[in-house]
Amino acid sequence: MSAIRVGVIGAAGRMGREVVKAVESVDDLELVAALRRTDRLESLTRAGVQVAVELTHPDAVMDHLEFCVRNGIHGVVGTTGWTDERLNTLRGWLAASPRTGMLVGPLSVGAVLTMRLARYAARWFESVEVVEMHHPDKADAPSGAAVRTARLIAEARREAGRAAQPDATTAALAGARGADVEGVPVHAVRARGLVAHQEVIFGGTGETLTIRHDSMDRVCFTPGFLLGVRRVGSVPGLTLGLESFMDLD
Amino acid sequence: MSAIRVGVIGAAGRMGREVVKAVESVDDLELVAALRRTDRLESLTRAGVQVAVELTHPDAVMDHLEFCVRNGIHGVVGTTGWTDERLNTLRGWLAASPRTGMLVGPLSVGAVLTMRLARYAARWFESVEVVEMHHPDKADAPSGAAVRTARLIAEARREAGRAAQPDATTAALAGARGADVEGVPVHAVRARGLVAHQEVIFGGTGETLTIRHDSMDRVCFTPGFLLGVRRVGSVPGLTLGLESFMDLD
Amino acid sequence: MSAIRVGVIGAAGRMGREVVKAVESVDDLELVAALRRTDRLESLTRAGVQVAVELTHPDAVMDHLEFCVRNGIHGVVGTTGWTDERLNTLRGWLAASPRTGMLVGPLSVGAVLTMRLARYAARWFESVEVVEMHHPDKADAPSGAAVRTARLIAEARREAGRAAQPDATTAALAGARGADVEGVPVHAVRARGLVAHQEVIFGGTGETLTIRHDSMDRVCFTPGFLLGVRRVGSVPGLTLGLESFMDLD
Amino acid sequence: MSAIRVGVIGAAGRMGREVVKAVESVDDLELVAALRRTDRLESLTRAGVQVAVELTHPDAVMDHLEFCVRNGIHGVVGTTGWTDERLNTLRGWLAASPRTGMLVGPLSVGAVLTMRLARYAARWFESVEVVEMHHPDKADAPSGAAVRTARLIAEARREAGRAAQPDATTAALAGARGADVEGVPVHAVRARGLVAHQEVIFGGTGETLTIRHDSMDRVCFTPGFLLGVRRVGSVPGLTLGLESFMDLD
Repeated sequence: MSAIRVGVIGAAGRMGREVVKAVESVDDLELVAALRRTDRLESLTRAGVQVAVELTHPDAVMDHLEFCVRNGIHGVVGTTGWTDERLNTLRGWLAASPRTGMLVGPLSVGAVLTMRLARYAARWFESVEVVEMHHPDKADAPSGAAVRTARLIAEARREAGRAAQPDATTAALAGARGADVEGVPVHAVRARGLVAHQEVIFGGTGETLTIRHDSMDRVCFTPGFLLGVRRVGSVPGLTLGLESFMDLD
Repeated sequence: MSAIRVGVIGAAGRMGREVVKAVESVDDLELVAALRRTDRLESLTRAGVQVAVELTHPDAVMDHLEFCVRNGIHGVVGTTGWTDERLNTLRGWLAASPRTGMLVGPLSVGAVLTMRLARYAARWFESVEVVEMHHPDKADAPSGAAVRTARLIAEARREAGRAAQPDATTAALAGARGADVEGVPVHAVRARGLVAHQEVIFGGTGETLTIRHDSMDRVCFTPGFLLGVRRVGSVPGLTLGLESFMDLD
Repeated sequence: MSAIRVGVIGAAGRMGREVVKAVESVDDLELVAALRRTDRLESLTRAGVQVAVELTHPDAVMDHLEFCVRNGIHGVVGTTGWTDERLNTLRGWLAASPRTGMLVGPLSVGAVLTMRLARYAARWFESVEVVEMHHPDKADAPSGAAVRTARLIAEARREAGRAAQPDATTAALAGARGADVEGVPVHAVRARGLVAHQEVIFGGTGETLTIRHDSMDRVCFTPGFLLGVRRVGSVPGLTLGLESFMDLD
Repeated sequence: MSAIRVGVIGAAGRMGREVVKAVESVDDLELVAALRRTDRLESLTRAGVQVAVELTHPDAVMDHLEFCVRNGIHGVVGTTGWTDERLNTLRGWLAASPRTGMLVGPLSVGAVLTMRLARYAARWFESVEVVEMHHPDKADAPSGAAVRTARLIAEARREAGRAAQPDATTAALAGARGADVEGVPVHAVRARGLVAHQEVIFGGTGETLTIRHDSMDRVCFTPGFLLGVRRVGSVPGLTLGLESFMDLD
């Protein structure tokens, strides 16, 4: 079997360099294009790229993905800042190119497992809260991953017919009880020295179960990128999150 | 549907009192016998007990279960101290009473989920260690639950074809790297003030995933007992752990 | 040396029973009065109580303490609900009885040490946040101990000339960043199964330092009560918190 | 006041580059020599270095320090691998150069505070254990910092007249209860994804107090190096650890 031909858009950034190194270190993938900021997208088609890894920033990502979809190049997208509107635009492009696959979103194995395990445990506990912790240069609070985790938990609770969480708080300082995400309190801690951490705390009579994910280094995303690159070509359309590629069931 | 007729053996102990209270608080179970140390087992048959909850101690449990099996009374067993030999003896009795069911072992929802989630995550990570923490009056180290968790993880790693864990230790104080349970290091902390806690730490490139279970109070076992009592009658033979009753898949 | 004559007000409550047991278990203290709800305060003077332990509730505590101060009985007060106004009232009574001592406030060794260590570390780190976790029947959020800890930290930062904490958050859900206590974010988690827990997270370049206190059982307060009873008689006036009795310096 | 003239030995390594950058970023220090592997030590004297930062490896460090002491250059030493024998050799050199100061050992503010807080809390708790967690490429277990922490705790317990720790373990797998460092159990976890972490768990009746230090990045050492460089010149002789420079009392 011949190697998959991979192009990296944003190859000079910190994450880009990691992905380039990872692609070059395995036999079943071949790096045929590494685009920096000033490089033209046409290099992708000229080099015969089959799967592009997108690692630039929210301002540029849509143009890059439109080019890829139009040319039948599959994509694995690490750039964040997705809104429902943007996802729908991408879905529209993909509808016109029915054999092309795009993978967007959480690409760390640990992040995906955290969400999965949290959803799995959700119906068994009376209480649940999410505490995420990040470096103080982060602009959004809570993190997108924490909000997504809370929503998955809320959905699992609804499906299990769980009542609202017990909470006798009658006197609170504003903000003390966190942000309310569909009934799940989410707390965001910001401190120098932290990288990216998330804790889901489940509580039942006499016991708690805590699932914690610590991302200490962006290299934690590379195994997820490799898995995505290997699989995205056989899954047409838009895929959100690595989860469906992980054979978790 | 008529209520299940329940008997509690060891009803005067701390756990027994909790189970008695829990059985009495629900409509689909009826407490028809509550045996203390000096009570005779015949009270169980006389009262028409369908499911017995066994909460005494390792020295007495086998006699009690033999009586139950011989009389077709299903059992939910909270008493610990099980060896492979004892389990085989129990299996022998059950073979002669093919409609009787016995549930033995971890009966806390949190403990069961911890094992389940740990097994689930095991194949995705290069490294894994278990740290369990208990009060200093505990006689065994590591705890039975920690050993069982480590074995489930080891099994999942073998099935996934995982290599041995990386460990460059060349100079170690005796004991520093914990006990080796099928290739999974297990550490046992004992300190006043602790109750029963277990942490499974998975590590991959740039990230860790930690699953932690804290049992703060023995009442955490009562939901598991109730679930066991409701289900054991329809599952003949020996069942180890609450897991198969939890519809986790 | 003769034993200190101790009276317990609120001896029939859960905390009261623990204190009674603890006082009776040591040689240098003698339990001479154990008042229940309907007992009259005069029993204290009649029994020659030197130190009273007050364990009732906010509605009753002020009357009890006024009686004690008026009769020169020293007090160790476990009842919560203190406001600045109430403390001032108590100070007024004590001014008129200059030999009497009263100890109010955090009486767990671990809680006191957490505050002390937190204050000690405060000036060395750029960032700090407090996360407290309690059972869901608690009425106030954050806990009084968490607010007090945050204030001590804020004071230590001001004394060290520390700038405001770094926080680039520009898009936040309401409440995500916690309650602001003098510039220190405080988050309150409420979940079934939790007892009383507090975590102080300090962050500096490339590292974090976390101080965590877990109270698993109210018996954790008894060593603090005993220490208070032994010392309060030699410290006239109002003392807030066990700290000054612990010879921490 | 003129800037302190600083030389870095091992300036091309990862830690060296961080220190070079840090020295250049402040006004009161001046980088006058940055030695790489092949550079001669004479560059230090020629450049008029007042304080040398040593960041090479155990095989080379002793020669470098002998040169420095002989030439009256103060030293801040980040290289590890110190034995009592080596420390004594260094003390001997310093005895012959009574105005020269050398700082060796833990140079992270967080690591120093962890030890300090642990020693401070030690006498208040019946139980204490240390759990350190590192990446799996580490050769020694437990870490030097964990052993040093355990010794400080053991010393504080002895001074306070604390009895041996309670431990009812009668049946243990080899290694489960950790390494024994003067009566304090120390456990070493090794997993991919971890960096350098240490947890000290104190336990008393009904409560635990945990002090945890997470070093996520070697840049955490630079504030300690800067503090050491500024102070070492006024503290002749050998100083172990940053602690005495931190004005902690």
